[in-house]
Amino acid sequence: MKIGDDGIVIYDEKSRRLADEMVIAEARQTAQQKRDTEDCACKDGMFPRSPASRRKFLFAAGSAAGLAGSTAALAQKAPPGAVYYDVPADPTKVQGRPVDGDGGYGTRSQFETEVRVRFPTPNEYTSWSFTPLDKMLGNLTASGLHFERHHGGIPTIDPANHMLFVHGMVDTPKKFSMADLKRFPAVTRKHFIECSGNGLTEWNKPTQKTVQGTHGLLSTSEWTGVQFATIAREVGLKDGSTWVLAEGSDAAVMTRSIPMEKMLKDALLVYGQNGEAIRPEQGYPLRLLLPGYEGNTHIKWLRRLEVSDKPFMTREETSKYTDLLANGKARQFSMEMEAKSVITFPSGDMKLPGPGFYNITGLAWSGRGCVQSVDVSVDGGQTWRPAQLNVTPEPICTVRFSCPWTWDGKPAILQSRCTDETGYIQPTLKQLIAIRGSHGPFGSIYHLNAIQSWAVDEMGGVSNVHA
Amino acid sequence: MKIGDDGIVIYDEKSRRLADEMVIAEARQTAQQKRDTEDCACKDGMFPRSPASRRKFLFAAGSAAGLAGSTAALAQKAPPGAVYYDVPADPTKVQGRPVDGDGGYGTRSQFETEVRVRFPTPNEYTSWSFTPLDKMLGNLTASGLHFERHHGGIPTIDPANHMLFVHGMVDTPKKFSMADLKRFPAVTRKHFIECSGNGLTEWNKPTQKTVQGTHGLLSTSEWTGVQFATIAREVGLKDGSTWVLAEGSDAAVMTRSIPMEKMLKDALLVYGQNGEAIRPEQGYPLRLLLPGYEGNTHIKWLRRLEVSDKPFMTREETSKYTDLLANGKARQFSMEMEAKSVITFPSGDMKLPGPGFYNITGLAWSGRGCVQSVDVSVDGGQTWRPAQLNVTPEPICTVRFSCPWTWDGKPAILQSRCTDETGYIQPTLKQLIAIRGSHGPFGSIYHLNAIQSWAVDEMGGVSNVHA
Repeated sequence: MKIGDDGIVIYDEKSRRLADEMVIAEARQTAQQKRDTEDCACKDGMFPRSPASRRKFLFAAGSAAGLAGSTAALAQKAPPGAVYYDVPADPTKVQGRPVDGDGGYGTRSQFETEVRVRFPTPNEYTSWSFTPLDKMLGNLTASGLHFERHHGGIPTIDPANHMLFVHGMVDTPKKFSMADLKRFPAVTRKHFIECSGNGLTEWNKPTQKTVQGTHGLLSTSEWTGVQFATIAREVGLKDGSTWVLAEGSDAAVMTRSIPMEKMLKDALLVYGQNGEAIRPEQGYPLRLLLPGYEGNTHIKWLRRLEVSDKPFMTREETSKYTDLLANGKARQFSMEMEAKSVITFPSGDMKLPGPGFYNITGLAWSGRGCVQSVDVSVDGGQTWRPAQLNVTPEPICTVRFSCPWTWDGKPAILQSRCTDETGYIQPTLKQLIAIRGSHGPFGSIYHLNAIQSWAVDEMGGVSNVHA
Repeated sequence: MKIGDDGIVIYDEKSRRLADEMVIAEARQTAQQKRDTEDCACKDGMFPRSPASRRKFLFAAGSAAGLAGSTAALAQKAPPGAVYYDVPADPTKVQGRPVDGDGGYGTRSQFETEVRVRFPTPNEYTSWSFTPLDKMLGNLTASGLHFERHHGGIPTIDPANHMLFVHGMVDTPKKFSMADLKRFPAVTRKHFIECSGNGLTEWNKPTQKTVQGTHGLLSTSEWTGVQFATIAREVGLKDGSTWVLAEGSDAAVMTRSIPMEKMLKDALLVYGQNGEAIRPEQGYPLRLLLPGYEGNTHIKWLRRLEVSDKPFMTREETSKYTDLLANGKARQFSMEMEAKSVITFPSGDMKLPGPGFYNITGLAWSGRGCVQSVDVSVDGGQTWRPAQLNVTPEPICTVRFSCPWTWDGKPAILQSRCTDETGYIQPTLKQLIAIRGSHGPFGSIYHLNAIQSWAVDEMGGVSNVHA
């Protein structure tokens, strides 16, 4: 295949097979169907059902059923977030559901079954769940599929009673209700959040089968809230204030110390996510958002900010969330997430149906700023070619990339490599281990941002490998 | 108030009252709570409940209740899309919900109750529902709150059986399954969709109380899909092909004719919305997206594209969706949505609690390209000042704007005015009616993009006015 002067992809004859089997003479038939159907549309509650259709159809669960299928029985099979409806053989012959039928708040289709999957920790309250990056479409993460990491479960908080306390080295300690916070000027920004433990199982050998398991502690949302800088003006910062403790209202009372420089640069107190209130799992009603910092610092269910002249040395920055190095010393307060990328299609546990054209695609991101470029290799890093960035890079936001590939049916190793605007290039696992040592699965295992390798075998099977 | 050198808003003494009532001495108390709580966090399933708390709390419905409140009874009050949970007086004293508790697909908080509201047409299958713009946070529309406009209800379609036929003046007519379409290179773009009937009730006098009613047929999503241009290469366009008929699989078999120039420029066949599959109400599994064109042309449940050398003159472009002018003639195929904006806060049916600082905010958009600037007036258009654009303008996408305002307690008329990159300036209603005449409520009523006025009275009440 080649790219035309106008940037449009032109398929070569070999890859045209994608559509060649599907040439049809029956296209005109639909025009006739339209004329047949016109009379039955829009007759409120009085639509004729189609006679037995020649087309076969299947329910998602795989069982064949007709229009008379039992909704009640089948509804049991509906995935989370979906409502089950009967499936007509020809939707143009049957009146559809009414406007606003779900009570004014829509849900996804009953045929969409992807879910977050929890990592099998012994305790389901202090655990994490992964975003299904392999099923993800586009650049944002659906709110219902944003990854989770909780240390004491998800609290239920009434926003009418929630308060944020701001105190310590300030001129005037104050508390703010949610209504107070919403009266301040707000900003809206798209940012990713990545858990610093994303990939923690992968240091020594490949263990997770899918990209959901290897990279699914990464999600991107549009966030809306008030700048900490605005709140700082309200309370007044005393000279010498250099750190801020942020505290959540969960049962773990999660706390982290954040440099004041970061807080004033771009920290947000967010109450909006993807156009509506932030979801409970993401900190409803208020979360600290620290663009580019490890997820653990983005304190959820935020209730307190204490200004100080030194860090507070909480458990989460002493015994946890430090980076043990190969020399036995550890990095502390290493909170910025370095440049990283991963191919989401094809990825682990998928199967390519045969040789031919494929659109390799994935995500790239950096906690230091914009993604500058992404390279893709299909030979395990021996040669690289530039990927196309499908969206305009925004600071500290994922970028969907893609790269056309015609698979010749031979074994291949697929890799992607991100370079960010600082010039930092995503390292190989070997380069990373030379500095950091090999750790895990539950030692000091944070900040693994190495290049991910997916092996494609001769049968089209895709698997997670170290290469 | 004034803006500091660093762009941070500085509140004057008068507007500081926002927080002044809330000075507290009890902030340190939370640190003690943290220590008290540490022992109870993370004990799987064995958490102590707090003793009677001194803090009062209320359920969303307004009834006071304790930890022993009946979940079953209260669950009846849960809004659409929410699951009801008991509300502890102090969430740090109670273990939260487990990770992944909703089956892996999250829902919004039980305290969030905003919904789409259907316009009271006699027929609920051919009707529309409005996005609650007054409750919206940020720039994107939550998928569950995207406006709806259906002509024959929402069909239920199994994507495994859905096909797109492409035929007519093409070299090789073809049909594509959803799997076929997903193998092509995809693009991801943020665009608004606005119904050309948005505001149709407002031509002659203000009728809708809220901005949900006056402007709620507007929503913005991140869309992912394949370019029509890519499909055009697959089938080959014959010389002289200048129009394309797009047809949906709903009971109305919705059809519109689209100029080939537009189809090749930026038309997308989208299957992704905000990171997951497109929602059923938005055309699952496949929708035609025509950036900047009136919503009716973005054919949902897309099943057929027929290439031709002339428009097809369907019902939707002859008896409907034309613009009657003051001189009795009508514009046809006037599909581009012109520049428009609206203030969403403060807006109709709200009440300001008293004089002081308010952050006026709203949305601006244009079907012709990027928003260039937005001006705000608080005196009914006598004087204007530039609003801040809260996000970087993207082509054919809404822009959240804001403008600080200290209300002096006297009557005011709030207006916003959008200018797009073509230099077009959003007109007043008077200017628009001079050309288009006054129509409605069910005559030729499309494309009302006039400046909206909200009156603030001395009591802080906000209402919809023509000014």
